[in-house]
Amino acid sequence: MTTRSSDVTDVTPATVAAVQRTLDGRWHALRDEIRARDDFATLRVDPGTDVESYRAAIGEMLARLADDGHAVHGFPTAVGGRGDIGGSVVSFEMLAFADLSLQVKSGVQWGLFGGAIQALGNAEQHQRYLPAVMDLSLPGCFAMTETGHGSDVQSVHTTATYDAATGEFVVDTPTESARKDYIGNAARDGRIAAVFVQLYSRDERHGVHAVLVPLRDPDGTVLPGVEITDDGHKEGLNGVDNGRLAFHGVRVPRENLLDRYGTVAEDGTYSSSIESENRRFFTMLGALVRGRVSVSGSAVGAASLAQTIAVRYGEARRQFAAPGSDDEIAVLDYLAHQRKLLPGLARTYALRFAQNELVEMLHDIQTTREAGGDVDEKRQRELESRAAGTKALTTWHATATIQACREACGGQGYLSENRLGQLRADTDVFTTFEGDNTVLLQLVAKGLISGYADDFGHLDTLGTVRFVADQVLDTVAERTSLRQLTERLRAVAPGRDEDDVLDRSWQVKLLDDREEHTLDSLVRRLRRAREKGISAERQFAIFNNAQDHLLRAARSHLDGLVLDAFVRAIDACVDPSAQRLLGQVCDLYALSLIEEDKGWFLEHGRMSAARAKAVTAEVNRLCQALRPHARALVDAFGIPESWIGAPIATGAETRRQDEARAHAASLR
Amino acid sequence: MTTRSSDVTDVTPATVAAVQRTLDGRWHALRDEIRARDDFATLRVDPGTDVESYRAAIGEMLARLADDGHAVHGFPTAVGGRGDIGGSVVSFEMLAFADLSLQVKSGVQWGLFGGAIQALGNAEQHQRYLPAVMDLSLPGCFAMTETGHGSDVQSVHTTATYDAATGEFVVDTPTESARKDYIGNAARDGRIAAVFVQLYSRDERHGVHAVLVPLRDPDGTVLPGVEITDDGHKEGLNGVDNGRLAFHGVRVPRENLLDRYGTVAEDGTYSSSIESENRRFFTMLGALVRGRVSVSGSAVGAASLAQTIAVRYGEARRQFAAPGSDDEIAVLDYLAHQRKLLPGLARTYALRFAQNELVEMLHDIQTTREAGGDVDEKRQRELESRAAGTKALTTWHATATIQACREACGGQGYLSENRLGQLRADTDVFTTFEGDNTVLLQLVAKGLISGYADDFGHLDTLGTVRFVADQVLDTVAERTSLRQLTERLRAVAPGRDEDDVLDRSWQVKLLDDREEHTLDSLVRRLRRAREKGISAERQFAIFNNAQDHLLRAARSHLDGLVLDAFVRAIDACVDPSAQRLLGQVCDLYALSLIEEDKGWFLEHGRMSAARAKAVTAEVNRLCQALRPHARALVDAFGIPESWIGAPIATGAETRRQDEARAHAASLR
Repeated sequence: MTTRSSDVTDVTPATVAAVQRTLDGRWHALRDEIRARDDFATLRVDPGTDVESYRAAIGEMLARLADDGHAVHGFPTAVGGRGDIGGSVVSFEMLAFADLSLQVKSGVQWGLFGGAIQALGNAEQHQRYLPAVMDLSLPGCFAMTETGHGSDVQSVHTTATYDAATGEFVVDTPTESARKDYIGNAARDGRIAAVFVQLYSRDERHGVHAVLVPLRDPDGTVLPGVEITDDGHKEGLNGVDNGRLAFHGVRVPRENLLDRYGTVAEDGTYSSSIESENRRFFTMLGALVRGRVSVSGSAVGAASLAQTIAVRYGEARRQFAAPGSDDEIAVLDYLAHQRKLLPGLARTYALRFAQNELVEMLHDIQTTREAGGDVDEKRQRELESRAAGTKALTTWHATATIQACREACGGQGYLSENRLGQLRADTDVFTTFEGDNTVLLQLVAKGLISGYADDFGHLDTLGTVRFVADQVLDTVAERTSLRQLTERLRAVAPGRDEDDVLDRSWQVKLLDDREEHTLDSLVRRLRRAREKGISAERQFAIFNNAQDHLLRAARSHLDGLVLDAFVRAIDACVDPSAQRLLGQVCDLYALSLIEEDKGWFLEHGRMSAARAKAVTAEVNRLCQALRPHARALVDAFGIPESWIGAPIATGAETRRQDEARAHAASLR
Repeated sequence: MTTRSSDVTDVTPATVAAVQRTLDGRWHALRDEIRARDDFATLRVDPGTDVESYRAAIGEMLARLADDGHAVHGFPTAVGGRGDIGGSVVSFEMLAFADLSLQVKSGVQWGLFGGAIQALGNAEQHQRYLPAVMDLSLPGCFAMTETGHGSDVQSVHTTATYDAATGEFVVDTPTESARKDYIGNAARDGRIAAVFVQLYSRDERHGVHAVLVPLRDPDGTVLPGVEITDDGHKEGLNGVDNGRLAFHGVRVPRENLLDRYGTVAEDGTYSSSIESENRRFFTMLGALVRGRVSVSGSAVGAASLAQTIAVRYGEARRQFAAPGSDDEIAVLDYLAHQRKLLPGLARTYALRFAQNELVEMLHDIQTTREAGGDVDEKRQRELESRAAGTKALTTWHATATIQACREACGGQGYLSENRLGQLRADTDVFTTFEGDNTVLLQLVAKGLISGYADDFGHLDTLGTVRFVADQVLDTVAERTSLRQLTERLRAVAPGRDEDDVLDRSWQVKLLDDREEHTLDSLVRRLRRAREKGISAERQFAIFNNAQDHLLRAARSHLDGLVLDAFVRAIDACVDPSAQRLLGQVCDLYALSLIEEDKGWFLEHGRMSAARAKAVTAEVNRLCQALRPHARALVDAFGIPESWIGAPIATGAETRRQDEARAHAASLR
C-alpha cells in the first residue's frame, strides 16, 4: 500500500474518546448516563424463545424501564416529564443495543401512543392520560395503518361518526381492508388505542382525526364491539404483540377525540384552526414526525452494533497461512474483507452525524413550539423532509450493512448467539414501517421541486402530477448552503491539489453538481405534464416514467446533506488527532459513495475515466490505511463491553486462536 | 411508454406452458412428477415453532420422504438407487418450495453424508451403508468444517492416527478450534459421521481423509469419547439440528476409512492412486461438488417462490387513487415497484438456465465416471469452477431478491404467514456455506488465470501468489466459445440495428470485452509478483491489492456464462411466442446487468454516454412492457397453487380489495 501524508498513525485512547464525543453529539451526557446502567445487558431475550414467552419477557422489561423513569425524557414537564425531546430520541436509540423488541415496544407506548396524545391532544388530555402512559399503567396502541392503507393513510376507511343525541362517537370498521393492522400492543397488552378515523359529524366528513378507543378492561378482557386478532409470528420483533383491530359500533364519549387540530362541539358542529382538510391532515402527520426520527436513530445504532461485532471478529479470525509462515492471516487483512466492512463503517459514521443534526433540528423546532413559540412553516417542512430522507437512508443502510456483517462472520454470523441474524430480522421492517422508504424519497423529491410549497410535498404520489399541472415550476429548492460550504471548504483545505480525489471541495462539488443536474432535468421532464389539454392518464404516465429519476433526485440531495453533516462534525471536533482520523473516514465515505455512482458521473461528464479509476484506487488504499484503526473506529461507538453479547466479538475467537497456535507450536 | 415491434402482446396459457417447459429443462418430467405430490404443501413447519418441536417435525417429515423413496434418485442402481445424479439435484431443489429446513436436512443425510460415502467410499462400503442411508435407518453427519477452519478445510486439525496393534484409527480433537462445527444432524439425530481428519499412520501425515465415526447408540445415547454440543438457535433453518462434535481417543476399525483415494493397509502402510497430497485433497473435494450445485439450485428455487409471492401481491395490492378516478392503482403499475421486482425476476430466469446447464454438466461428468468412463481432468475443473461461480451468483441473488420482495410487500411481507421473512432467513447462510462466496469467486478467477492448470485453481488464496511467482502466466483461459457465440448471434439477429441496445450481439460482445479486459489487466498486475528477489510479504501485498480486481474478473466471466445459457435456452425453445417473451426477459436481464456496471463500461471506453443513457431508458421501458406479463412469468415457474402458501399471494388481498371497492361503491 502506498502511504500518504494524510494517513493517520497516532490513534491513542484519547483519540478514540474524542471521536466518541463527536459521534455522541449534543446528548453525550445522556448517552453516558445510559451507558452506566449496569442492568442494560440483561434487557435481552433469547431469539429462540417462543412468541408468548417472548412477549411476556418484553412486557416485564418494559415495566422495569418505566419504573426507572426511562419514559420521562420527551414528555412535557407539566405532566412530570423532562421536556427533553432530543433526549427521548437518543434514549430510544440506545435501546437498540439491548433488545429491539423492547425498543419497538417502548416506542409504541411512549413514542407513538403517548406521542399522539402529546401532539394531537389538548392540555386536559395531557393531564388525564400522559402520567399513566409514562408509568405504563395505561398501555396503549397507535392505530393508524389499515390492512388496505399503509402508505396512503389519508385514505383510511375506519369511521367515527358523531351522535349528537348521546354526545358520543360511533367507531366502525366497514371492511376487512379497513382493519387497523400491524398495531403494536394490540394482540396482548393494549388497553386503549389512538385510532385514526375519517371523522363524520352532521353527515359531513372532516377528514382524518384520532380518537381514543378503549380496547380491554383492566383485567385484559376485550370490550364489546372490539375485535382483536393476532398478527402472529413475524420475521423479527417477536417480543412485540402486533395485532389487528376492528370496531363494530363502538361508542366513545366526545372528549375522546384528540382535538388539537379539529374539534366537534356538543351539537356536532365541527371546527378547526386549519381550514384545508389536506393541510390539516399533513399538519397532524407533521406533528408525529418524531417516530420517523426515532426509527432512523435505531437503524444507526443497530448498524454500529453489527459493525462492532464484525470488525472485532474480523481481527480475531484467521484463515489461510501467510506466505512463508505458519501463522494464518487475520481475515480483516484481506482487501475483500475490508471492502465488505469498512466503507459501510464509514457510512455509519456519516449517517450518525446526519442523524445527530436531524435530532437537533427536531428538538429545536418542537421545543420552540411546545413553549408556544412560532415555527416557520417552511422550516417544519424541511424537518419533515429531512426526517423522511434520513430515515430512508439509515434504514436501508442498516439492512445492507448488517447483512454484510453477517456474511463477513460466516457460519458464526448465522448462530443466534452472535446476534447478527436477529439484528437483521428485527430491523428489516424499518425500511417499510414509519413510512415506506420509496414513498419517503418521493416526499423528499417533491419538497425539492416545490421549494416546500404549502399545498405540496406530502404523501400523495399523484399530487406531483396535479401540482406540476397547476403551478409554474420554477421554484427549485435553494441549494445555497451546499454552495457556500463548497466555497468555505476551498478556503479551509488550501494545501490539497485540486486534482487529488481527496480534495474535499471537489467531493462536495461533485455531489452538489449531481443534485443540481438531476433536479433540473427532472423539473424539465415533469413540466410536460402542464401542456394544454393533457389527459389524466398521460399526466400519470409522465410522472410514472420519471419515477426513478425522482427517486434519484431525492437520493442525490440526501447524499449531499449527509456529507455536509460529516464535514460540520469534523469542523466541530476539537481534538486534532480525532479530526484527522474522522477526515480519513469521511474520505472513505465520500469516495465510496462516488464510486458507487460513477456511472452517472461519467455519463454526465462530471468525471474523467482516469479520475474514476483514481477514485476506486483510493477507496482500496483507504481501506488498507484505515484497517489498523478499524477497532478504534468501532470502539468509538461506545457500546459497553457487557452490551455486545456476541461471543465471537468478546473473546471466544481470540481464546480459540491462541489455544490452536499454542497447540501447533507444541507439535513443532 | 413507447412500444416497440419486439414487444410481446400475445401471452396465452400455451405460451406460459412453453416457457415453463424451457425453464424446467432436461428433468422436466421429474419436476412434473414431484409437482403432482398432493402432500407436498403439508411439508412445512410454522416458523414460530420452538426449536425442539421444529426439529422433531422435520425429522418426521424426512422419514415420510424416505418412505416415499425421495432419496433414491442420486444413488447407484447397484444399491437400489436410480442412478440419476441430475435428478437428485432437481428433486432436492424442489424441496425449497416446501420447508427449507426439511430440504437442508435431506441434503445433509442424502447429499452430504450419503454423498461422501458414495464419492469417497469403496464398493463394499456402498453396499454396507447406502441402503441404510437412503431409508434413513442410519442418520448421519458430514463433519468437515471446524470452528477454526471453514474456508481453508485443507488445514483441519482433527486427527485420525492409525494404531497397527489393534487395526484401528484413533480420532482426536486437539483443541476447541478443531471441533467439527455447524454439523447438521449432530445435535439430535446423527448416529454416525463422515469425519474429515488429518490421517496419520506410521508417524507420517497423509493429508485430509474421511473416516466414519459412530456417534450415538441406536437408542440415541452418545458414545464414549464423543462430545456433542448444540449450536442452538440460528437465524434460520431451525428445523436442522446443527451441532459441534469433538472426539477424545475414539477408536474405529480400519474399514471405516472412506478409502477410494487413499488407504491404509493392516500394517499401516499408506497408499493412494494420487501421489500429490494437494492434488489428492482437491480431487476428493471435487468429487463432492454436488453439494454446491444443489445449494445453487435451492437458491434459484427460493428466489422464484419469493417472486411468485411478490408479483402476485403487487398485482392485487392497490395504493393511491388514479388521477381523475376513484380507483386505486395496482402497486406493480408504478415504475419504482417494477424496478424493484422485474430485473430481479429476469435474473432468476437467467440463473435458472445457467443452473440447468450446470446440472447437466454435473450429471454427464459424474455419470460417465460412475460408469467407469474417463473424464478429462480439465473438464472436471471447469465443472468445479462453474459450480463455485454459479453457486455464488445464485445465492447472492436469492439474498438480494428475497429482500427486495419482502420490502415490496411492506408490512405483509414481514408477517411469517407470507413466508418471505423465513425464506430470507433460511437461505441467508447459503452465501457462506458450501463455500464462502467470496472464496468461491477467487477459485473461479484462478481457474481463468491458469487455464484450469493442474496444481492450481483451488481454495488456497495464497496459492495464487505462489503460482504467479512460479509459472509463466500466459495461459489465459480460452474465451472462444463466447466469441463464436457473438458471431453466431450476429448471423441470427440480422434485422436489428447495431446501434440498438436490444442488439443481442452487442450485449454479448460488451460482456465479452469486459471479461477479456479485466482478466488481461489482472494477469499483468499479478505478474509483478514474479520479479526476482521479491519477498513473501510483497507477493502477498500484490495479490491482496488486486483482490477486488480478481473478484471482478470472476464476476465478469460468470455474467458472460449466464447470458450464454439464457441465449441457448431461447434458441432451444420451440414455441415462437414463448421464444419472443424469453427474448424480452433476456433483454431486461442483459441491460439491467450492463446498467449496474455502466461505470466500468464508460470508464473503459466500451460505451458512450448516450448509449449508457439509452440502456437506462430501455430498462425502464422493458419493465413497463413486461409488466402485463409479470404474472405469466412467475406462473411459468410452475409452483403448484397449494405450495405457495402465502395468503397475500393466494387470494386474500384480492378478496379484500374487491370488498373494499364494493363498499365504496355502495356509499356513492
